[in-house]
Amino acid sequence: MARISVLGAGSWGTALALLLHNNGHEVILWSALGEEIDVLREKRENVSKLPGVKIPEAIDITTDLERSLRDADVAVLAVPSPYIRSTCKRMAPYMKKGQRIVNVAKGVEEKTLMTLSEIIEQELPGAEVSVLSGPSHAEEVGKGLPTTCVVSSRRRETAEYLQGIFMSPVFRVYTTPDMLGVELGAALKNVIALAAGTADGLGYGDNTKAALITRGIAEIARLGVKMGARMETFYGLSGIGDLIVTCASVHSRNRKAGYLIGKGYSMEEAMTEVQMIVEGVYSAKAGKELAEKYEVEMPIIAEVNKVLFEGKSASEAVIDLMVRDKKVETPMLPWNDETE
Amino acid sequence: MARISVLGAGSWGTALALLLHNNGHEVILWSALGEEIDVLREKRENVSKLPGVKIPEAIDITTDLERSLRDADVAVLAVPSPYIRSTCKRMAPYMKKGQRIVNVAKGVEEKTLMTLSEIIEQELPGAEVSVLSGPSHAEEVGKGLPTTCVVSSRRRETAEYLQGIFMSPVFRVYTTPDMLGVELGAALKNVIALAAGTADGLGYGDNTKAALITRGIAEIARLGVKMGARMETFYGLSGIGDLIVTCASVHSRNRKAGYLIGKGYSMEEAMTEVQMIVEGVYSAKAGKELAEKYEVEMPIIAEVNKVLFEGKSASEAVIDLMVRDKKVETPMLPWNDETE
Repeated sequence: MARISVLGAGSWGTALALLLHNNGHEVILWSALGEEIDVLREKRENVSKLPGVKIPEAIDITTDLERSLRDADVAVLAVPSPYIRSTCKRMAPYMKKGQRIVNVAKGVEEKTLMTLSEIIEQELPGAEVSVLSGPSHAEEVGKGLPTTCVVSSRRRETAEYLQGIFMSPVFRVYTTPDMLGVELGAALKNVIALAAGTADGLGYGDNTKAALITRGIAEIARLGVKMGARMETFYGLSGIGDLIVTCASVHSRNRKAGYLIGKGYSMEEAMTEVQMIVEGVYSAKAGKELAEKYEVEMPIIAEVNKVLFEGKSASEAVIDLMVRDKKVETPMLPWNDETE
Repeated sequence: MARISVLGAGSWGTALALLLHNNGHEVILWSALGEEIDVLREKRENVSKLPGVKIPEAIDITTDLERSLRDADVAVLAVPSPYIRSTCKRMAPYMKKGQRIVNVAKGVEEKTLMTLSEIIEQELPGAEVSVLSGPSHAEEVGKGLPTTCVVSSRRRETAEYLQGIFMSPVFRVYTTPDMLGVELGAALKNVIALAAGTADGLGYGDNTKAALITRGIAEIARLGVKMGARMETFYGLSGIGDLIVTCASVHSRNRKAGYLIGKGYSMEEAMTEVQMIVEGVYSAKAGKELAEKYEVEMPIIAEVNKVLFEGKSASEAVIDLMVRDKKVETPMLPWNDETE
């Protein structure tokens, strides 16, 4: 049994707190938002974000960051990605050397193009940072439906320790050392989800969506490999797996915003209608900048940027993707009439 | 403009005949089934298999195999996989040396474990065989919805010639030399679709389905690489792309049969209810035999076989998949605490 501090009481933080409690750990759930904590304490349910899932009394709920981190074997960082840096700054005074932190947020910092683990390591230099990612709707994890994830740490020992902490008969955890690959896949998949939603809005079918998913992860992998990540990771649970779940979901804000854009809404109109931050819009910019910085061709992310920020029509973007130069799918493989 | 013979007037053969006609080629559509041809000629529509899609008068429709192959630049083989060998035997007398054949059927021969291209090359030794595969519901291609596929030939020249023949503003074609990888992915994806359908029938969510798709293609790739195919191919359009489309489809017989099994039907009851051949049931056997022959661990395909042929309950199979040994997702990657 370990003592685990879950920081952030959104749907994912709440679902993970419950999973960890069910695994027999001592769990303390923290949020910076006093009102959120009051409701959680009173109702023992995250009524707005994870309705129908009861939070047992044994899960301690608090706004006291110092108390939540005291003696924590593991701190799970589950705040939205724009709050990662500020949360780390708040955590700094209470950190002990070698504190294990598991980041479960997804994103790339817009101005610096840093991954979230890089931000955490910068703000909390003594901590040992890991990440957890994969196809995992919080609602389904909250209900105990079978789910798989991957945990990535630089050291195998840490990854295996965390695998043991999170794994259960309904939550299967794999390990990998490729943290950069896990984080890039998680951050950039939302841009492809936006594109897939747009295809749905245009009235296209499953063929088009499968093409966008498959070629989308191929271009993300191309970028990632150039940055030092490993191809295999993008074709694992945190890459294609998470992308599949996001593109299939009717709940995904990214997919929904894309759908509206496919129906002819402007980016601003779609954002207003969805009434929440659409992460893919920001990741689209970051993806484009990374593609330029690392000189990688990312045709789908390029077209998404044109539609979002240059007023290009979505149907025109699809046509331009379809009629590009004829390509080899697997440029590195040899042909018989060239190798003999 | 080329002269193209499409052999087989099912939904895929019909949709491809139309695509090729729209690309400006001279197309002749052949079927062994006289009744099917009579209806097609009279109605100019494949009423049962591709309803609502008109077949222009310029597409020649025939039961005369000799005439259909005469002067054909390309023969597209679109008969169901169990009829590939017998159709090739019928074609043999009319074959010219170097005849280009594009197989679009998917499967592995049950008794011999041969791929379809191997069967064609065995029966028609003078032919030059290629394959076309990818996420491509015939109904959507018939309607002209944007679709991508991959064509594989041993020679780049042939692949690029066929890419030019098939490609259109709504049908984007990539090339690859890895024919074995394309064929194995196409044949074995139906087993994973069965498993995904079963998960739906058990009431599991998108997380479980994404896990089955991601880990499913990983085990197919593991087998394929051992057989001499290339990892990249399984993560391309003909592998994960086609698998995504099959698992998402409400029309897939494999997914539907799996769904019924998840609801508690036996394999026989599910087959009776679906009233058509469920390819995944046969591919499951072939997959298991290939796994044994090449000594590759294929846990999902193994569990599907237990459920189909040994009366194991589907929910027990899922639990056994979830609680197996703890695994590394990417076994080949180095860890910091082991490489320093």
